[in-house]
Amino acid sequence: MTFTDLSIAAGAKMLPIKEIAERAGIPEEALELYGNFKAKINVNDLPPAADFGKVVLVTAISPTPAGEGKSTVTVGLADAFNQLGESVVVALREPSLGPVMGMKGGATGGGFAQVLPMEDINLHFTGDIHAITSANNALAAFIDNHLHQGNRLHIDPRRITWKRALDINDRALRHVTIGLGGPAQGVPREDGFDITVASEIMAVLCLATSLEDLKERLAQMVIGYTYDREPVTVRDLEVEGALALLLKEAFKPNLVQTIEGTPALIHGGPFANIAHGCNSLAATNTARQLADIVVTEAGFGADLGAEKFMHIKSRKGGFNPDAVVIVATVRALKMHGGIAKDALAETDPDAVRRGMVNLAKHVDTIRQFGIEPVVALNRFVTDSEGELAEIMAWAKAEGVAIALTNVWEQGGKGGLELAELVKQELERPTNFAFLYNETDSVEEKLRVIVQKVYGGVDVQLSDKAQKQLLEIKKCGWDELPICMAKTQYSLSDQPKLLGRPQGFTISIREIIPKLGAGFLVCLTGDIMTMPGLPKQPAALKMDVGPNGEAVGLF
Amino acid sequence: MTFTDLSIAAGAKMLPIKEIAERAGIPEEALELYGNFKAKINVNDLPPAADFGKVVLVTAISPTPAGEGKSTVTVGLADAFNQLGESVVVALREPSLGPVMGMKGGATGGGFAQVLPMEDINLHFTGDIHAITSANNALAAFIDNHLHQGNRLHIDPRRITWKRALDINDRALRHVTIGLGGPAQGVPREDGFDITVASEIMAVLCLATSLEDLKERLAQMVIGYTYDREPVTVRDLEVEGALALLLKEAFKPNLVQTIEGTPALIHGGPFANIAHGCNSLAATNTARQLADIVVTEAGFGADLGAEKFMHIKSRKGGFNPDAVVIVATVRALKMHGGIAKDALAETDPDAVRRGMVNLAKHVDTIRQFGIEPVVALNRFVTDSEGELAEIMAWAKAEGVAIALTNVWEQGGKGGLELAELVKQELERPTNFAFLYNETDSVEEKLRVIVQKVYGGVDVQLSDKAQKQLLEIKKCGWDELPICMAKTQYSLSDQPKLLGRPQGFTISIREIIPKLGAGFLVCLTGDIMTMPGLPKQPAALKMDVGPNGEAVGLF
Repeated sequence: MTFTDLSIAAGAKMLPIKEIAERAGIPEEALELYGNFKAKINVNDLPPAADFGKVVLVTAISPTPAGEGKSTVTVGLADAFNQLGESVVVALREPSLGPVMGMKGGATGGGFAQVLPMEDINLHFTGDIHAITSANNALAAFIDNHLHQGNRLHIDPRRITWKRALDINDRALRHVTIGLGGPAQGVPREDGFDITVASEIMAVLCLATSLEDLKERLAQMVIGYTYDREPVTVRDLEVEGALALLLKEAFKPNLVQTIEGTPALIHGGPFANIAHGCNSLAATNTARQLADIVVTEAGFGADLGAEKFMHIKSRKGGFNPDAVVIVATVRALKMHGGIAKDALAETDPDAVRRGMVNLAKHVDTIRQFGIEPVVALNRFVTDSEGELAEIMAWAKAEGVAIALTNVWEQGGKGGLELAELVKQELERPTNFAFLYNETDSVEEKLRVIVQKVYGGVDVQLSDKAQKQLLEIKKCGWDELPICMAKTQYSLSDQPKLLGRPQGFTISIREIIPKLGAGFLVCLTGDIMTMPGLPKQPAALKMDVGPNGEAVGLF
Repeated sequence: MTFTDLSIAAGAKMLPIKEIAERAGIPEEALELYGNFKAKINVNDLPPAADFGKVVLVTAISPTPAGEGKSTVTVGLADAFNQLGESVVVALREPSLGPVMGMKGGATGGGFAQVLPMEDINLHFTGDIHAITSANNALAAFIDNHLHQGNRLHIDPRRITWKRALDINDRALRHVTIGLGGPAQGVPREDGFDITVASEIMAVLCLATSLEDLKERLAQMVIGYTYDREPVTVRDLEVEGALALLLKEAFKPNLVQTIEGTPALIHGGPFANIAHGCNSLAATNTARQLADIVVTEAGFGADLGAEKFMHIKSRKGGFNPDAVVIVATVRALKMHGGIAKDALAETDPDAVRRGMVNLAKHVDTIRQFGIEPVVALNRFVTDSEGELAEIMAWAKAEGVAIALTNVWEQGGKGGLELAELVKQELERPTNFAFLYNETDSVEEKLRVIVQKVYGGVDVQLSDKAQKQLLEIKKCGWDELPICMAKTQYSLSDQPKLLGRPQGFTISIREIIPKLGAGFLVCLTGDIMTMPGLPKQPAALKMDVGPNGEAVGLF
């Protein structure tokens, strides 16, 4: 018999979510049930916390097609803390439906380190992303209706920056023309669709601290420019109330459980390249209120996920991580050492050693933030003892805490050693410091990220980006943190430069102000905000049984 | 103090939905809670019914901008039965978000005859419509991905009939071009968006009898034609399983309650002009299984809603209505008598008398089906005694059962007289008969509807429709019922011909086979499948309070 994530999930016995809530100290009146195994939390009905829990951030080396299992380690580490008798909550992002239909592989962990009910979470869950799609496209309809009904605000149809969104991988919607068919059918213009998780509304929902703050952030979003190049905001259109109304339920964190019954908050999932790529601040803060230890993750490698977690999410939330785990695998390090994906099965300790420079750089980055990271070496059955020994020897030499994890197969038990090491770090005071201040110039903030986090030499702005920066300064938007949109595969902006590239310069193509989210997106290279489907979409294997059993969902 | 639908709803005390379920005889294990006041029903877990309840269909005269209050009467009638101690369940359509954001006025009844929680029902409810949007657009993405990946099926990009959908009023999306931007961005073609409730998937969900039947209907949907003009179906694309998986939760009926605690099933809401405009067969059949009396409604006037209820929904469901209520108001009859909307406040019994021909025709139509209708004269405060007397005198002369209703103000109490009359009809055996058989020719079926239901002379097919009909016959699709897409405002296909137009011919512009839904849509004139927003959308007045209270939602 072979195990799949779905068969393991389907075979697992879940506890009623009310019981999980009780374990987490959530009173029943704060719970809104969605069936027996999912609930939304009315945060205002939680008892005030005496103190807030410590935050463990799980990040990774630069991802490769070999896979690192970051979400799996995040879940397994939380389960390990649970086994150790700690009060722990895990906080994760919600998966987007688009990739689920396209590629195999969800974002709910794997094997015996999963969150449940995995099929609900991977399909519509509690409807949060659908609510964001609705709000995003309602705003688009209000904009086009405004053009159609006389354009009181003199919005330039060529300079509308707000795009439509769908939670599906659909390349044919990247570039479209709308409003065709004559005067009764709207004003013709160019437009495009992003995947919903790339909508600024997702980032707004994930960084808002209250419903009032959510509404204020929505009001601040820039949707385009007038013929006189003045920014037009949602406030100008007077629809921030309607958008907030559409989002009021989606703003509540969702409670589920891991396979081992650890409480899990799964809420919000901004695209990790165009946005900051972490679950909502609301969920993290709720978890901090409920538990002594919060295990959470950030998208992609530490150069993107962890850097944005620190500079954007932590900064807004007024807390910092108390420990950081960097996930690495032998397979991925071998790819960083120059081995192709189809040759990974062969033992090659030299390749591991060559690839380790990538891990070393991420360790160095986390240390610069004043935190001593712990490395989780996530085992695969194909790993050889010689390859593992290579990494262990390096860690010993560099004084890096490292633990083998085997959570896919063993659940929390496979993460106990890691949990013990992380606990030691949690007991030590951190020396946390941001690498840049919001008041630094945009150029300075960019330089700090490129030099200290990516290990590059300098940053260059395209003519377009320089022009945009002038505009940003004129509008007084330059004191916002940076949200880098860079390839996740390389520390540089060249996806094929694996390992630890040296002497490179990062080119900024565009700078897009996201005033609702509260950051400046700096685009390097082509960043995809609407994925496409592969030749054989995962959907072809999906089905549903007569009693509603999911088939072929991973 | 003035009452609004929202203030009345917000002030109402709801019972826990578990209690409502218990009243309706739904065992707890068949219930999936969505918060404390909404639930989905796992129909397979219901106890088998000894016999099935009787069905009361609420329909109306041809609608006018004056409003008839059909949903309000439907809810009030159910509450009246409840007050009389009858075992009753009301079954209604789910409102679409698009019109909610656009125009004031929802589909959850009004005043003291509402279903609750009205704000949830009018916003995202349990996510059914979002699931349909997802399935609709996933299918569109699979089609465009098929074109992009080599087009194995030789689909002609100019002859793709499957459109994208959003649950928003957005005229700028009616006619679009997609796939622009070069070879990596898909195949350029013309496309368009419908409002989600106009998606064939909505009709499929509303007519399916089981999850297996749902999947089979999805498989049969035609998405376009090959270069050789052969139909291409979802089965050819092999994605019916994935679509059914996306819809498995949406297929379960939703349980809520009326303001007076009557169990209400709100499920499915196909567009009443392009589709059949009734709540799901699953909900109606569940209601029939649970209660002695089921009160339900069909969209628009009896010429559209009731005709399709009989010929499409009842036929598929293997039952027929046991009683029919036709809702009329003084105000609407005055408009049918030639009075403009802004002059309705003036007393004008002559106009009422002139407009009554519209009501008389609908009474006649229902009688042709072998059912003796009951007229509900829904009172407004502006109605004069003289005007009401005019209608009462007519009813007496024609032997039509008629009752005044005042359910907006009084709830079930305002519908007791109507309930008593309907009860009398329920005790009499009906003589129900379809006006046409599925095996009749398409032309014959159309002629029957035009002559017997609309009171017209004949039907004419455009050249295009004739060509399409040849194709339909060639494919063997002609033994399906007709789904007329006609203006709701007139018995004819001319929206401005109010009252009871005579001697008219109906022109069929196009015949579109909907093989998943199982009917042939016959389009007369321009039928809007994507509404637009008005100059001042209702959204401008919407807001949300700090604790999540809805503001400005009706």
